[in-house]
Amino acid sequence: MAIKIALLGLGTVGSGVLKIIKNNQKKIKQTSGEEIVIKKALVRNPNKHKNVAKELDLTTDFMEILQDPEIKIVVELMGGLHPAKEYISDALNAGKNVVTANKDLMATYGSELIALAAKDRCDLMYDASVAGGIPILRTLSTSYASDMISEIQGIINGTTNYILSQMGEKGLSYDAALKQAQELGFAEADPTNDVTGKDAAYKIVILSKFAFGTKIGINDFTIEGINNLQDFDIKQAQKMGYVIKLIGIAKNIAGKLFVEVAPCLLPENAIMAHIKNEINALQIKSQSLGTAVFTGPGAGSSATASSVMSDVIAETSNYVKQINGKPFSNFSRIMKLTSSEDVKYPYYLSFDAEETLFTLSKLLSKLEIPVREIKRINQKTVVMTEEISRQQLQDLAIQDQYLRASYKVLK
Amino acid sequence: MAIKIALLGLGTVGSGVLKIIKNNQKKIKQTSGEEIVIKKALVRNPNKHKNVAKELDLTTDFMEILQDPEIKIVVELMGGLHPAKEYISDALNAGKNVVTANKDLMATYGSELIALAAKDRCDLMYDASVAGGIPILRTLSTSYASDMISEIQGIINGTTNYILSQMGEKGLSYDAALKQAQELGFAEADPTNDVTGKDAAYKIVILSKFAFGTKIGINDFTIEGINNLQDFDIKQAQKMGYVIKLIGIAKNIAGKLFVEVAPCLLPENAIMAHIKNEINALQIKSQSLGTAVFTGPGAGSSATASSVMSDVIAETSNYVKQINGKPFSNFSRIMKLTSSEDVKYPYYLSFDAEETLFTLSKLLSKLEIPVREIKRINQKTVVMTEEISRQQLQDLAIQDQYLRASYKVLK
Repeated sequence: MAIKIALLGLGTVGSGVLKIIKNNQKKIKQTSGEEIVIKKALVRNPNKHKNVAKELDLTTDFMEILQDPEIKIVVELMGGLHPAKEYISDALNAGKNVVTANKDLMATYGSELIALAAKDRCDLMYDASVAGGIPILRTLSTSYASDMISEIQGIINGTTNYILSQMGEKGLSYDAALKQAQELGFAEADPTNDVTGKDAAYKIVILSKFAFGTKIGINDFTIEGINNLQDFDIKQAQKMGYVIKLIGIAKNIAGKLFVEVAPCLLPENAIMAHIKNEINALQIKSQSLGTAVFTGPGAGSSATASSVMSDVIAETSNYVKQINGKPFSNFSRIMKLTSSEDVKYPYYLSFDAEETLFTLSKLLSKLEIPVREIKRINQKTVVMTEEISRQQLQDLAIQDQYLRASYKVLK
Repeated sequence: MAIKIALLGLGTVGSGVLKIIKNNQKKIKQTSGEEIVIKKALVRNPNKHKNVAKELDLTTDFMEILQDPEIKIVVELMGGLHPAKEYISDALNAGKNVVTANKDLMATYGSELIALAAKDRCDLMYDASVAGGIPILRTLSTSYASDMISEIQGIINGTTNYILSQMGEKGLSYDAALKQAQELGFAEADPTNDVTGKDAAYKIVILSKFAFGTKIGINDFTIEGINNLQDFDIKQAQKMGYVIKLIGIAKNIAGKLFVEVAPCLLPENAIMAHIKNEINALQIKSQSLGTAVFTGPGAGSSATASSVMSDVIAETSNYVKQINGKPFSNFSRIMKLTSSEDVKYPYYLSFDAEETLFTLSKLLSKLEIPVREIKRINQKTVVMTEEISRQQLQDLAIQDQYLRASYKVLK
């Protein structure tokens, strides 16, 4: 008896799923315990997908999928919040298991949908929603099941990592690097969500739930993208032995949770500093395992499709054993978020021209900001501090109008 | 109802398991679905473990564990082939689920024990047997469930990676680096299995089963360690832009399986070249995911214990749902091993002094070995070839008595 599934959406990821099921049938049957067949796909315009019309039913009506009792798994690949949320809810309520790659949705309505899946005793899996090519969510929920994670650092947006790599290594300007990323398909026509850090923020919300068991929202933390990052700072960081990366961080600081998405300086010999172009990476520090790094493609049709298929296979395997309904992550804990006093890092500070060294030194001294290095370059000033609190940094920003950029320095 | 488990052996890993269960009780209960309690531990000398005698029963008699109906999971941490094999077999036959970290055992008697577990409808998991701190086996069996792997390259022995890093970066001699590794606990008093590549070979046997579904034995492939590696070659490789690492490789070459453990040259900008000291790493190339790299500690008490606990939790979760008995990896496929003609790599060749350039050139030309670079240094000769077959290399070794070393150059 084959397991019938339905796809909502038949774009690049959907086509990738189709291809994997066609090419790797035998392995899929071995690993899932059943043959997996795509019975129906929801599309806007069936005429656009005539090439696959022989293999599966195309429909423009979600009800056809919802009311088909043969369909056991619904794979949501439409993206966006609505109607994805409604379709998934309806599918769960109809007793169907769900796989989604939709990070915006899971970061926004995750708790609600997870609770619904539990009530309906259905599986809801979304490994592909974070770093498609890195099996991070499943790893966090299984291999870290007995371990306590203290920090997760992620390069979790391929577009920005591509742009930063090109700026840093080839000396391209931000605009030129973005244009190149778009031409190569690493950036969308509208890259806003990527370059402002919002995409990475969605992912860190989901990662925090798995790594710390703690539910946070996209408005609970600071998000800074790379759209205001200057060539000047990339070059200065390099001269000091650092690489600038857009890092999503979630860290247990004395029992409170610190979350942020921002450009950070990494020492050039750190493994994370070597993660280039569209590649993603996650560095996890934990009590038992120490430091582990996972790296791979963050997106792309086949990587995301493969991640979706891992979920489909896990749900199929559960279906065969009649044990659907266990949450994707069982870990749950309430953690307070850190306040500005709790968070301490060394910072790279970049000041605009006009200030005298005397005035700046006086202010830094007044705020008790210890300085490791101070450099004047082309009438600008760059300061590397020792560890300071975010509170100190915020005070500095208020009192010094020339502070243009401040980036955490990670170890 | 708590799940009772027993430990066979209470050394560093066993103590690590004890500590994790004590410290992370709450998370373990959430993720496994049950409280997990160590009821008994098999030890040689109970007097040595008086500090834990209050928490669990110590016994010198395996029968006490075997005949205890309350014990649902037996965790084998004794190492060695016998009596580990017999104890595991007895436990499975008594309907107990088994976790083991024993790579020698799984590489040698894996198929037999896996078949026994299936017959007895018990779980047999061994994620900790390969690269303790990297959850690679579970990842291969779940996240690669629909993907076809084409190559796996592993730095899977911490001792040798530590020695090579110290030789390469600090210029230490092999003996000095080994001594340092021993002092720091990264090498055992008798490092034979590590430095001869045997330890890595056991791991690549297990990895091949998970990555390619194919059963191979330790005698089916070439194993070369680092015990004959010369400082000279490490330095020459560096001058040419390469780093030498001990790599376990398993690769699908036109449908046949190539397996080898040997020192290899990696380009210095490759991520794998940056994996230093005792750290392990696995680079996996696959159809859908492209290239992914997983890195973390390869061994150590707490990393291995954490990996063991992932298995204990998975088996507990299965036990709660009454679904024990599914193999750890379902993927199974018969692949022929490659012959010497099938395998082609560029090679780094190192020749001893006596040969004239003329004689060498003539021989290389006769064997149709294309040369990319040839260097004479201190009356020695180093050659970088283009891609050549292992057959050509073997012919060269037979016909040229001065060939002292040959290492694959990986991309």
